[in-house]
Amino acid sequence: MEIKVLNKGFVRLVDIMGDDSAIVQAARTSYGTGTKSYEEDKKLIRYLLRNKHTSPFEMVELKFHIKLPIFVARQWIRHRTANVNEFSGRYSEMRDEFYIPELEDVRNQSTTNKQGRSDTILDSEISSSFVESVKNSQTDLYKEYKHYIDTGIARELSRINLPLSIYTEWYWKIDLHNLFHFLKLRMDKHAQYEIRCYAEAIAEILKEKVPIAYEAFEDYTLNSMYFSKNEQKLLSKLLNNIDIDDALLSDVKLDKREITEFKDKINLLKQK
Amino acid sequence: MEIKVLNKGFVRLVDIMGDDSAIVQAARTSYGTGTKSYEEDKKLIRYLLRNKHTSPFEMVELKFHIKLPIFVARQWIRHRTANVNEFSGRYSEMRDEFYIPELEDVRNQSTTNKQGRSDTILDSEISSSFVESVKNSQTDLYKEYKHYIDTGIARELSRINLPLSIYTEWYWKIDLHNLFHFLKLRMDKHAQYEIRCYAEAIAEILKEKVPIAYEAFEDYTLNSMYFSKNEQKLLSKLLNNIDIDDALLSDVKLDKREITEFKDKINLLKQK
Amino acid sequence: MEIKVLNKGFVRLVDIMGDDSAIVQAARTSYGTGTKSYEEDKKLIRYLLRNKHTSPFEMVELKFHIKLPIFVARQWIRHRTANVNEFSGRYSEMRDEFYIPELEDVRNQSTTNKQGRSDTILDSEISSSFVESVKNSQTDLYKEYKHYIDTGIARELSRINLPLSIYTEWYWKIDLHNLFHFLKLRMDKHAQYEIRCYAEAIAEILKEKVPIAYEAFEDYTLNSMYFSKNEQKLLSKLLNNIDIDDALLSDVKLDKREITEFKDKINLLKQK
Amino acid sequence: MEIKVLNKGFVRLVDIMGDDSAIVQAARTSYGTGTKSYEEDKKLIRYLLRNKHTSPFEMVELKFHIKLPIFVARQWIRHRTANVNEFSGRYSEMRDEFYIPELEDVRNQSTTNKQGRSDTILDSEISSSFVESVKNSQTDLYKEYKHYIDTGIARELSRINLPLSIYTEWYWKIDLHNLFHFLKLRMDKHAQYEIRCYAEAIAEILKEKVPIAYEAFEDYTLNSMYFSKNEQKLLSKLLNNIDIDDALLSDVKLDKREITEFKDKINLLKQK
Repeated sequence: MEIKVLNKGFVRLVDIMGDDSAIVQAARTSYGTGTKSYEEDKKLIRYLLRNKHTSPFEMVELKFHIKLPIFVARQWIRHRTANVNEFSGRYSEMRDEFYIPELEDVRNQSTTNKQGRSDTILDSEISSSFVESVKNSQTDLYKEYKHYIDTGIARELSRINLPLSIYTEWYWKIDLHNLFHFLKLRMDKHAQYEIRCYAEAIAEILKEKVPIAYEAFEDYTLNSMYFSKNEQKLLSKLLNNIDIDDALLSDVKLDKREITEFKDKINLLKQK
Repeated sequence: MEIKVLNKGFVRLVDIMGDDSAIVQAARTSYGTGTKSYEEDKKLIRYLLRNKHTSPFEMVELKFHIKLPIFVARQWIRHRTANVNEFSGRYSEMRDEFYIPELEDVRNQSTTNKQGRSDTILDSEISSSFVESVKNSQTDLYKEYKHYIDTGIARELSRINLPLSIYTEWYWKIDLHNLFHFLKLRMDKHAQYEIRCYAEAIAEILKEKVPIAYEAFEDYTLNSMYFSKNEQKLLSKLLNNIDIDDALLSDVKLDKREITEFKDKINLLKQK
Repeated sequence: MEIKVLNKGFVRLVDIMGDDSAIVQAARTSYGTGTKSYEEDKKLIRYLLRNKHTSPFEMVELKFHIKLPIFVARQWIRHRTANVNEFSGRYSEMRDEFYIPELEDVRNQSTTNKQGRSDTILDSEISSSFVESVKNSQTDLYKEYKHYIDTGIARELSRINLPLSIYTEWYWKIDLHNLFHFLKLRMDKHAQYEIRCYAEAIAEILKEKVPIAYEAFEDYTLNSMYFSKNEQKLLSKLLNNIDIDDALLSDVKLDKREITEFKDKINLLKQK
Repeated sequence: MEIKVLNKGFVRLVDIMGDDSAIVQAARTSYGTGTKSYEEDKKLIRYLLRNKHTSPFEMVELKFHIKLPIFVARQWIRHRTANVNEFSGRYSEMRDEFYIPELEDVRNQSTTNKQGRSDTILDSEISSSFVESVKNSQTDLYKEYKHYIDTGIARELSRINLPLSIYTEWYWKIDLHNLFHFLKLRMDKHAQYEIRCYAEAIAEILKEKVPIAYEAFEDYTLNSMYFSKNEQKLLSKLLNNIDIDDALLSDVKLDKREITEFKDKINLLKQK
């Protein structure tokens, strides 16, 4: 299963150990109970994820082959609980493959987000000129690199002026719990657009391979909203005179246990 | 700084590297800026914790000397991102020191929480009889242990029937980010009472040693409240006709940035 | 694949991701080269292991189901680079299953090894009496445990006097590099006999599942001998007047590269 | 304590928790014994390191501020058991500082070592021309970068063509055991010259801050020599007719325990 990412990159699932049922199997070891029905398994997985019982999710392991620009690789590698085998520019010649952004992805510095780019699309002349300039530099730098190599200069030295936009490749192996953590951070709107593209490709793969766990991750982690101690006081006031009636609850899909949990939260809020 | 825990245990801070200012210092490396005022430092620490920028908190390291029953040690050691040097029952003789619960801590199995004990205090006859029985067994088992040792049986074998209530000791070293994670899990009401006592002792130490970071941890992590995707839909309905007025906001301590963040959350909720 | 260990324990391979060829595949990513012959793959694996290029071995992942006494579990869990799901005595009742040593494994304290037991077999009366005493205590303690449970005392409290010899179970997932490290330490003669039995069971499984890598591990890690800086000076003197002739080399199986490496080491030694 | 490295880099020790005595303190917890004399402490540290009892060395923690080229940072970050806070090119503008090799460090590809450079010094015309070309590119690329920034292009995009030779900075925190592992790999002659310079700077700092532990590391790890199973068979034949006499041993500094260990190794060898 391979998904193209950016102009020349990809994410390819090489191997997977376990699936939704492996999570259940590991959890039931802790509880000392055997297998149950699909519905009960689904409930269990959702319960585990909702309550941050993370160790059963570590029992699923995924191995990917990924091709990505070095500036993305540098953000990626900050996730330490994973195994990596990267292409080495000391052993082998780097290939003539560079990241070139699409015109609509070239943006100005954001005025509200110190680390990101603006939501406004740039005048196409400006973005074209940026892309042209980037391309030209890449061509020049690769020519220089090849020239150094041809002169006999060591590969490990010849490469030092290659730009961060050059592609590298690696095998990357990680368990599902840590992969969810990676996705939570890298699918976030504050993550750089380019690494978000990779995170979304991985999410596609998970949707297919561990559908129940991935859905639980979306519901309870990726799209969760949390309120700090002081925010809860505000919320408490807002909700002060409001009652939860059954009509309200019947509209939204929560299982029985979740309804109790929700009512508990609201009651707790009202007491703040 | 040493705090007594349970009948014979303790938590003692042996050494600490860094404090609140070390968090700021590390964060400002990322931003490429220098030192600022106390107020700005505090704001930065709270901003970092609120937004899960966890790496600066890893820059503070704490080393503890801890004495704890083995059944607590077994829960504790599940936190893998820490360094441990434990007293060895293969090298040295175990000491005659056992955990004996206080009468009011002896409880029945909880009927609502499969892993915990009830909130109801037991008839003192029942708890006394439990404690007496526990004590007698401990005395017998230690006598047997000493007898084996005196017979010449290897220490590593003599100990195999010692009970999980016997005390052990260790040096435990961990960074502040991972310690907060430990506290989040072990101060939780679902954690076993005995390990919660240790977690609370550590919290006391943190309050003194990294007061700003600890307060932020309390506000944004320990006492935060999560709403899942579906819970947000409910909340959305509840809040449908309610406006946030400035009077409301003035009552609760949120800084300017947090007020914006809160309004954003409520607006987001209303659109669900 | 399940192997019985001790009186009631076992090691069972639940799942494995990858085999010898997965090591090669990962390594060739670094080198940017494709697949080769069996002989070349074998050479590569041995080269990688000999030169501590450990990351390709992390690309193989193994999941085990293990049943083991708690005192063994406590040594085992010190290996932190692994994932664990353990049976919980808070959720479920512990089973009436205890480790009882074989008579010939009951030994006196070693006089030379502070942490181990003697090589000498004990008088059978002494070992029988130890085993009888251990058994009786186990029976009594389990009776007490059941009594507490029946009285309604919480499981998490009832268990605190259960002995370290009681069996627990867990799922344990680890990559091959870290598993080799585990085996290096736990197959060592200084490891406690009981954990060594488990390590040897795992070794049997590896011999079958990753035969080339395991053989390399035996040749270059498990049975390697190392000499410190000062020991090398002694060795240097011992070897001073000795020449390496080809007849000598032809007797022992080293490949061409290894012969060069060996000669280099001896020459280096002679210069000390 | 700051040490200059390469043309613009440095290693600066920001903080250290513990020293040689912290290693001893942690180890004696395991053994259940108190403090002893300097000589006994030294012996203990050397014993621990020689026998790979690594956990006491984890009880010393070091924090560094490091300035290094990105291609070095990419090798460095592969060591995962450490904490990092890096300067962010998304938040702040990169500075106009690049690695430029000294003329004598510009070398051809090694003919024997696929990943390294030759030992032969190049004709100075060739190395000058390489260095000039590298410098010119760096100047051009930085000019382009500044131009993009001035045009308003987001920092996270403007930087994608900056070369791997540009300097970055980070705070890096690691325990002594893992730092020794880092040094073992990065002081090795197969490591790239530039990262070796950093490793050697760190070694200088350790020599001063943990002199006993560092000396033990040099004697037993850094300069140790391994023999594989088959190499031992060869060595066995070489040593066949040779006796170890006391005169020999008196020449070389080994303590009593080490002499026994050495004799054991030689006897073991002779039996192969």
